[in-house]
Amino acid sequence: MSLSVALIGATGYTGLEVARLLTHHPHAELAIATARAEAGKPIASVHPSLAGRLDLELEELDPVRIGKRCDVAMCCLPHAASAETVRRLVDVGVRVIDFSADFRLSSLRVYESWYGVKHPWPERVGKTVYGLPEFFAEEIAGADVVANPGCYPTSAILPLAPLIREGLIRGDDIIIDSKSGVSGAGRSAKVGTLYCETNESIAAYAVGCHRHQPEIEDLVGRIAGREIEALFTPHLTPMSRGILSTIYVRPSEGLAAESASGSTADGSTDPAVDRVMQSWRDCYAGSPFVTPVDHLPATAHVAGTNYVQMSVRRAGERLVLLSAIDNLSKGASGAAVQNMNVMFGYDQQSGLG
Amino acid sequence: MSLSVALIGATGYTGLEVARLLTHHPHAELAIATARAEAGKPIASVHPSLAGRLDLELEELDPVRIGKRCDVAMCCLPHAASAETVRRLVDVGVRVIDFSADFRLSSLRVYESWYGVKHPWPERVGKTVYGLPEFFAEEIAGADVVANPGCYPTSAILPLAPLIREGLIRGDDIIIDSKSGVSGAGRSAKVGTLYCETNESIAAYAVGCHRHQPEIEDLVGRIAGREIEALFTPHLTPMSRGILSTIYVRPSEGLAAESASGSTADGSTDPAVDRVMQSWRDCYAGSPFVTPVDHLPATAHVAGTNYVQMSVRRAGERLVLLSAIDNLSKGASGAAVQNMNVMFGYDQQSGLG
Amino acid sequence: MSLSVALIGATGYTGLEVARLLTHHPHAELAIATARAEAGKPIASVHPSLAGRLDLELEELDPVRIGKRCDVAMCCLPHAASAETVRRLVDVGVRVIDFSADFRLSSLRVYESWYGVKHPWPERVGKTVYGLPEFFAEEIAGADVVANPGCYPTSAILPLAPLIREGLIRGDDIIIDSKSGVSGAGRSAKVGTLYCETNESIAAYAVGCHRHQPEIEDLVGRIAGREIEALFTPHLTPMSRGILSTIYVRPSEGLAAESASGSTADGSTDPAVDRVMQSWRDCYAGSPFVTPVDHLPATAHVAGTNYVQMSVRRAGERLVLLSAIDNLSKGASGAAVQNMNVMFGYDQQSGLG
Amino acid sequence: MSLSVALIGATGYTGLEVARLLTHHPHAELAIATARAEAGKPIASVHPSLAGRLDLELEELDPVRIGKRCDVAMCCLPHAASAETVRRLVDVGVRVIDFSADFRLSSLRVYESWYGVKHPWPERVGKTVYGLPEFFAEEIAGADVVANPGCYPTSAILPLAPLIREGLIRGDDIIIDSKSGVSGAGRSAKVGTLYCETNESIAAYAVGCHRHQPEIEDLVGRIAGREIEALFTPHLTPMSRGILSTIYVRPSEGLAAESASGSTADGSTDPAVDRVMQSWRDCYAGSPFVTPVDHLPATAHVAGTNYVQMSVRRAGERLVLLSAIDNLSKGASGAAVQNMNVMFGYDQQSGLG
Repeated sequence: MSLSVALIGATGYTGLEVARLLTHHPHAELAIATARAEAGKPIASVHPSLAGRLDLELEELDPVRIGKRCDVAMCCLPHAASAETVRRLVDVGVRVIDFSADFRLSSLRVYESWYGVKHPWPERVGKTVYGLPEFFAEEIAGADVVANPGCYPTSAILPLAPLIREGLIRGDDIIIDSKSGVSGAGRSAKVGTLYCETNESIAAYAVGCHRHQPEIEDLVGRIAGREIEALFTPHLTPMSRGILSTIYVRPSEGLAAESASGSTADGSTDPAVDRVMQSWRDCYAGSPFVTPVDHLPATAHVAGTNYVQMSVRRAGERLVLLSAIDNLSKGASGAAVQNMNVMFGYDQQSGLG
Repeated sequence: MSLSVALIGATGYTGLEVARLLTHHPHAELAIATARAEAGKPIASVHPSLAGRLDLELEELDPVRIGKRCDVAMCCLPHAASAETVRRLVDVGVRVIDFSADFRLSSLRVYESWYGVKHPWPERVGKTVYGLPEFFAEEIAGADVVANPGCYPTSAILPLAPLIREGLIRGDDIIIDSKSGVSGAGRSAKVGTLYCETNESIAAYAVGCHRHQPEIEDLVGRIAGREIEALFTPHLTPMSRGILSTIYVRPSEGLAAESASGSTADGSTDPAVDRVMQSWRDCYAGSPFVTPVDHLPATAHVAGTNYVQMSVRRAGERLVLLSAIDNLSKGASGAAVQNMNVMFGYDQQSGLG
Repeated sequence: MSLSVALIGATGYTGLEVARLLTHHPHAELAIATARAEAGKPIASVHPSLAGRLDLELEELDPVRIGKRCDVAMCCLPHAASAETVRRLVDVGVRVIDFSADFRLSSLRVYESWYGVKHPWPERVGKTVYGLPEFFAEEIAGADVVANPGCYPTSAILPLAPLIREGLIRGDDIIIDSKSGVSGAGRSAKVGTLYCETNESIAAYAVGCHRHQPEIEDLVGRIAGREIEALFTPHLTPMSRGILSTIYVRPSEGLAAESASGSTADGSTDPAVDRVMQSWRDCYAGSPFVTPVDHLPATAHVAGTNYVQMSVRRAGERLVLLSAIDNLSKGASGAAVQNMNVMFGYDQQSGLG
Repeated sequence: MSLSVALIGATGYTGLEVARLLTHHPHAELAIATARAEAGKPIASVHPSLAGRLDLELEELDPVRIGKRCDVAMCCLPHAASAETVRRLVDVGVRVIDFSADFRLSSLRVYESWYGVKHPWPERVGKTVYGLPEFFAEEIAGADVVANPGCYPTSAILPLAPLIREGLIRGDDIIIDSKSGVSGAGRSAKVGTLYCETNESIAAYAVGCHRHQPEIEDLVGRIAGREIEALFTPHLTPMSRGILSTIYVRPSEGLAAESASGSTADGSTDPAVDRVMQSWRDCYAGSPFVTPVDHLPATAHVAGTNYVQMSVRRAGERLVLLSAIDNLSKGASGAAVQNMNVMFGYDQQSGLG
């Protein structure tokens, strides 16, 4: 029997991506999709790509009804509003994958200072698993609530965490220069994301003050058991989907020493580069979606998939780590399906390309 | 001494293009730019590309002040609102180039039925020159108000009008399939023109019911002295600027007969095609921006310029006319500058690339 | 047990799309992929998006080896070269889906005149099923060779054929104005399809002389049992994938009479439009991918899928048919997988989004 | 009387941009355009956007003829080939603006090791002015040969040089993360820059080993009188034109101390940020194209112009400098026209938007 899934907040791009992925899923089915302003309309009227593929009427959010019909809910609401809804869903026995930032951070204080709101369910902050199955699969399997990771954090944590944990790189000199497609800005009508504003243009935004910076620092710290400090600069890039993160780090003294003594007689490889690749291969041996590659990854290589391509280059005294993901898939809805798979005992790759 | 220009409604894409063009103009200068919601801010805060290039504060619309300081106003307001403003500007002695559709059509009845509003200055409908200097330069030179043409109409009238006037093609079997860049939809925040909605996608809209259809029929009729009927289908195309019109017509009996007897001994040319090219060359000999070409025009060939490239191919019993313009330049703001040049006795090409 | 598939000519965009689709297919697996110039390299070196997803070495074409290992071959070679290879594969007992135009047309004479080559296997011309399962599923099921349809033809035949067959529209006044993404031009290095040549630009090409015109006429004629003549104009559109066809037709006398007497008391519907929608619904009731829709289809609505969205509008005396497909999926590789599913008795939708 | 200009190597994007800019120039005219493979054809056959705007026949390179007819040559040939041609042109008395890297670097050894060729005119290496009029206007005015700057270097040198010269930032911890439009890769047919390879995708290339890295280090060093070391990573971005450079630097001890004592009582400004802005304003007071701005610059803000927008943000202990240019204009052909203006005593802005 199929899992029955509720999608809360179905009108945005992450909602569409969830719906799209579930039309392919062998073990799950979208049973309820909510959207306050559009309740009563067919979902295809909001997402015309679903015409003929998904016959479902949008409805108002009704936790009791969801509790009766669904095993799991994917909650795509804005922060704070999300935590409230998550609480009501948990109360009626539905397991929840929360797309918001409400339960991602360890610290209530950090959350409230970066998000500027009072948290509606503070008891659960710091006590909710972060939905990165590459590190937290066991806890996800048993969780009632999973905090689905942010898109930029996914692209940064995956390359950084094992290297910090193994002490291969320094934690105090990390620069993350990320480039995201426009879908990351959501589907609400704003002049700044009109076609003619973003087409043929790239620009940085929120330099040094984006909310994903504390999330990256928090999670790498939790995974690696060592605090880090990162400078994070996101850029709006003229493409619909994808994140490329170019990450500038310094080898630790240990790795530097190791590299200095490494054999590069034939000049073809760099011991520090090899060591990073090895660390990634070891760490992600059981993770089907994380793919260390020799070539320089492009966002198009992972577009529409749940894969992460990661690579590394030496540049003078620094190492440059590069990672590419699809921000709507591994950066949001694909990760949610992957989490759902883990929560309900399916293969992580079920229904994911 | 320089012309002093007022720009009414400066925050949209046509407003920006006017401002940009005037920074290059050897004989005109932007003196006043109005924008209700942004009054008091520097124009560069709304259009960051003008930073360091145009130091002007946006202000509220004040016709009296404009009357004192400006020779000419470019009015980029929505229809109906525009006509009201044009009237007030004319009252204080300012000559006006109106970007709206308010004074383009010959018939008040047709205007009110297609635009669904009562016309605020009905006496001037049918008595205002249409700002296509290729046909109406003399009247434009003396006009107090010029109705700046619609973007699609410019791309259709220029190739069609001379052929209809000379009786080379039939007036009752015309299909205009136009493809426009997204800037044609304006700069207001709407989901439909968000980057992710229009990128990587082409779609028709307003099939057979777009307001530019009566404008095309009216103007070709006026210029050619013969009524025509046209089917017009616009498409939203994933690019910022440009219109390509692919126009399917049938040769008149006269041209068909002429062609049948024409010499194509060497197979290299088609007499009907030659006749169309000749008609265009004759008609536009004195028009610096209209360029009949042998190659198939692409919108990129005219992007950022006031030029029109037009070409023709034979396909079975039909002729296919193709025209490319930049919708914001020759389709709007470039045409307005061209009209201004004619109104004030400058070379048509002054300040235009 | 899985089907074993050979992919002949794996380096292009259709080859990549076949490989990608097969990584998801529940009943088929890519066993062999050939590429003359790249033999010996991993397929991911040519298609980096397959890194970590498909571990296969490209090899030289060896029909005997394919005969031993594979049930079916997808042949993505240029025309003429393809027919030669198809013949060799059939000789060793492999069933073939041929992406080229070599076996699509009924007439050898038409083929040789439009393609300018001598056909390498003329006996099979006119005796090979056309791979449109919506009309030829039974023959496809038993075929040794299936001629996979052209991309533009798919977008035109599906909306036209049922209407011609039912006598709803005239066969002698059809204009097909198609807009294709750039991937339709293939992956070989040419200046004309460089990013900077096609970005921000739309242009027509091969007006009235594209090779898909006779294919459309031939197939609609075969399906409907009535000859038609169509004017076909393709356009290169600044997007990677997708075809939108805007098709201008005239109702037949029968439909016109029927419509005139139809009830449109409430003004909300047009009887001719209803009749077209009904014809499509009847014709495609058993076809899971063909979706008549009320909205105007956009290529983004079907991107990455095997679906076809079709719509119709009345415009004066004409009807405007609109269809959207993904040129690489339903227009090529998706159709091939759909054909493979039919040939081997699987559900048409197996492995297709 | 107009300057007479020769354009050597007219078929690429920089050649087109030179030709386009000169059609607007009040004091210069394109007299000769050379292109080996296309000699004898009209320039518009290679650049259809010039149809009707520039009537010139491409010809073979003939230095003697250029010497007789032209005052100045713009040389858009590949490195090494360029130096040879520059020498021949200088021999016949033509002043040359060289777009290649042949005369940009101070050191022959560095040139030969990074470019992998023997320099054809080694005597001039280190003795040719670098064409950045913001720093070298006087030498440019008298030069027979000007080395037109690289595109990435322009975007990095302008924000960095004054800060290094004033000792505001450290020279040993500089990371330049640059994002370029695809036109930077030139107009030759290569798979890697096909539309479908670069559209919807961003990727790094030449990480830590791009030839513009030594150029940036060399020039900042020359201007500032202090050696620096920079890590440079270029990225191919899905847009035709533009470069955004995001530059991570550390304040010098001096600036750090100064900042610490600076007044930020109201929290609204950062003394280090103010100091950087002041340094730029002072340095570029007489430079019409360099525009320090408060907003975060986007490449679209400078597209099609010769302007440079630069901004700065504080992020933890680092400063983030951002600069946006049009790679074909200020990054190549616009800079060349600016250099020509300086060489012949015109206003720097003549003919530049």
